[in-house]
Amino acid sequence: MSPHRLRPLSFLIVSLLMLAFSETSLSARTASRVSEFKLANGMQVVVVPDHRAPVVTHMVWYRVGAADEPRGTSGIAHFLEHLMFKSTDKIPMGEFSKIVSRLGGQDNAFTGHDATSYFQRIAKDRLGTVMEMEADRMVNLRLTEKEVLTERDVILEERRSRVENNPGAIFDEQMNAALFMNHAYGVPVIGWEHEIAKLSPQDALSFYKHFYAPNNAILVVTGDVTPEEVKPLAEASYGKIPSNPAVGPRSRATEPPQRAARRLEYKDPRAGKPSFHRYYVAPSYVTAEPGEAEALDILVKVLASGSTSRIYQRLVVKDKIASSASGYYSGSGKDYGKINLSAVAQDGQTLAAVEAGIDAVIAEVREKGVTDAELERAKSAYIAEYVYESDNQARLARRYGWELVVGRTVADADAWPDKIAKVTTADVQKAAQKHFDLRRSVTGYMLPEAPEGGGQQARQPATPSRS
Amino acid sequence: MSPHRLRPLSFLIVSLLMLAFSETSLSARTASRVSEFKLANGMQVVVVPDHRAPVVTHMVWYRVGAADEPRGTSGIAHFLEHLMFKSTDKIPMGEFSKIVSRLGGQDNAFTGHDATSYFQRIAKDRLGTVMEMEADRMVNLRLTEKEVLTERDVILEERRSRVENNPGAIFDEQMNAALFMNHAYGVPVIGWEHEIAKLSPQDALSFYKHFYAPNNAILVVTGDVTPEEVKPLAEASYGKIPSNPAVGPRSRATEPPQRAARRLEYKDPRAGKPSFHRYYVAPSYVTAEPGEAEALDILVKVLASGSTSRIYQRLVVKDKIASSASGYYSGSGKDYGKINLSAVAQDGQTLAAVEAGIDAVIAEVREKGVTDAELERAKSAYIAEYVYESDNQARLARRYGWELVVGRTVADADAWPDKIAKVTTADVQKAAQKHFDLRRSVTGYMLPEAPEGGGQQARQPATPSRS
Repeated sequence: MSPHRLRPLSFLIVSLLMLAFSETSLSARTASRVSEFKLANGMQVVVVPDHRAPVVTHMVWYRVGAADEPRGTSGIAHFLEHLMFKSTDKIPMGEFSKIVSRLGGQDNAFTGHDATSYFQRIAKDRLGTVMEMEADRMVNLRLTEKEVLTERDVILEERRSRVENNPGAIFDEQMNAALFMNHAYGVPVIGWEHEIAKLSPQDALSFYKHFYAPNNAILVVTGDVTPEEVKPLAEASYGKIPSNPAVGPRSRATEPPQRAARRLEYKDPRAGKPSFHRYYVAPSYVTAEPGEAEALDILVKVLASGSTSRIYQRLVVKDKIASSASGYYSGSGKDYGKINLSAVAQDGQTLAAVEAGIDAVIAEVREKGVTDAELERAKSAYIAEYVYESDNQARLARRYGWELVVGRTVADADAWPDKIAKVTTADVQKAAQKHFDLRRSVTGYMLPEAPEGGGQQARQPATPSRS
Repeated sequence: MSPHRLRPLSFLIVSLLMLAFSETSLSARTASRVSEFKLANGMQVVVVPDHRAPVVTHMVWYRVGAADEPRGTSGIAHFLEHLMFKSTDKIPMGEFSKIVSRLGGQDNAFTGHDATSYFQRIAKDRLGTVMEMEADRMVNLRLTEKEVLTERDVILEERRSRVENNPGAIFDEQMNAALFMNHAYGVPVIGWEHEIAKLSPQDALSFYKHFYAPNNAILVVTGDVTPEEVKPLAEASYGKIPSNPAVGPRSRATEPPQRAARRLEYKDPRAGKPSFHRYYVAPSYVTAEPGEAEALDILVKVLASGSTSRIYQRLVVKDKIASSASGYYSGSGKDYGKINLSAVAQDGQTLAAVEAGIDAVIAEVREKGVTDAELERAKSAYIAEYVYESDNQARLARRYGWELVVGRTVADADAWPDKIAKVTTADVQKAAQKHFDLRRSVTGYMLPEAPEGGGQQARQPATPSRS
């Protein structure tokens, strides 16, 4: 979920990059390229020029996601994202993407718990056209009963193929529902099936009319343009749309104190090898103390990211109780972050042994922290990824759009590498001591067994037979 | 929670009662006393005459409870119940109960997930007065900022004393939050502390103005009155209040498929002896198949109610691994019911042993069902309780009010003993096979240990040392 962790990098490249940028502040390089302004109707605009090729990435972000849905209408944010590709008075039914394609561009959209975004990558001279099109569907969407109901079937089918046919996705839903006691992060973005099935054209329309407005949106344009070029285009398209005074600041139900370590066991014959999973609720970059989220990013990277990580080295390489192990910290949420650790049991090993192994690694890092070498390696990797990402139009647009949509700033995005560089081993150890708290966690076992229905389930994890 | 299970009875009394009522339908006796009518504004009225003493019980039930609260404002239903005792134009601040008391009566109120009710027990000639008072506060409540904020502190203190000082209550909150993945039954009626602390006068007022209306209320009067006496009094008081067309039928988020058996462990030094708890989501009387809830009532009584129950006999008397054991089925919810089993470990015994013992008893009942003798004993006990309850004004008022408020009927309430009488051993076994499904359960251990905070917790239940 973090926009900062998108591709693996070799250490050679990292070292070269560190060499190249060690003299100046890393953040200064991108920051100087970013312009921000606001339209009279309240729409935020961010422009990041990049003149290497005559293309632009145009993104509109709405400050609304699945966690803003009225209770009982889960999936409506994602459903509306689909419906945005239907029709307006100007765009015939289902033509939006085809028009973008005929203009030589590509488009897509994304719905998360905290944001919904729409984007096109297109030749620079077509930017005005896609801005007109995006502004048009911000308020002029036509939703007929028939189209809405047909699309609902499409989404139910999408859920069946992406969730119901995927034991890992079903398991993840059950884990998140157990992890969050009160916050809507416990509800899947795509929605619960029985609630999707009841979504009405009226649900979609109310949601659309309330949340889709320029004062609830952020425009990000990266690529071969200048702020001076974007401004008149934005004013001529989005600028004509009145703001909606009904959209207030987001207010969501938050978690009560989590006081009891939770566990769950999911049995599914399609599950593959038995696997262990641990989710911890943690703060996000938005809600963490200064430096805390950065320390969590480093902590979980050292512990669980890739084959050099401590958990991998201990469980897979040394003790041979797991055949794979990984983990990440998702710090991008508006309200909460999450630490995710998982491992697949080696044939003949139990999940209890895997769990004990991971808990031993966690106990060690809580007691002794990480080494200077681990800290530096993690920092270098993050900073290199950040620099690479800064060379990618779409990723830059995503970086700034995401930061703004969850309530952070362009300056926050730009300061990230410097803040990562300042993390100390003491910060990492403190984060481990504070956030590896089983009371705020769910431990899950996924087992390739028939669900027992009304039957009794063994309390002890099953020992897989040797294959 | 079921209104039908309120006091233990000796089998001698039961037998006498069975003798007395064996000739006629049990339900006919009470049913013939009940009158129902509706006021022009939609308010339902039920009158149950009982002329043995010149007193009446007057109850008003609102079709709103904690499970109807807007997300993030938990506790507002209960908060409003408190505020209803403040003032109106006619009732000075805090005088409501004092006036009832000066009239020689008693009053109180109750908030649950599905209902809020207000009641007075009073001399029959004062009925008109309390009806005027209750009708007055249905729509004329005065809520000043100062009074609301003062009362909020009272409720926070109530929560501290009832929940925070009670490990069992904290544990129960964590269990319910884990049991319900989507439905608001997972949120405590009193509210989460951090949400209560933010409740505003505006939250209370919006909730009040929306839900408190005659068309969303049920009046139940039991005691020394006739329907002919109640009707003009009701018309003169409640009848003058206009209905609120904005209150629609209740619609709540329901559960997605529960697919993973859940567990949790709560450690609290104040917890007393280690105890085992298992909650299962089940249907309620409202949502069950015909006869299913009655079978669940009998099943759980045989299994876990009292010292003659199977679990008690096995774990406490025979195997001596538990020092106490009990359980009940709560079938009164509008949307779901719950089976609750619990046991305290005998000194020197583990909770794992207790759990295995209980699961063995469950497995046995699933496989072999209950005996005819157990079935008959459970039926006799329920029917006797029902008959006793029918002699108690307040309980009768509660019985009919509850049934109507969750969407059932007077006829449903009256048919209950006959339906209980029809349950077969096959019905009970089928209920056990269907509803003792660990995937729809949470198993919890409460342990008298210091919470470990960021520390690791043992996966194995602690073995208590011998005392």
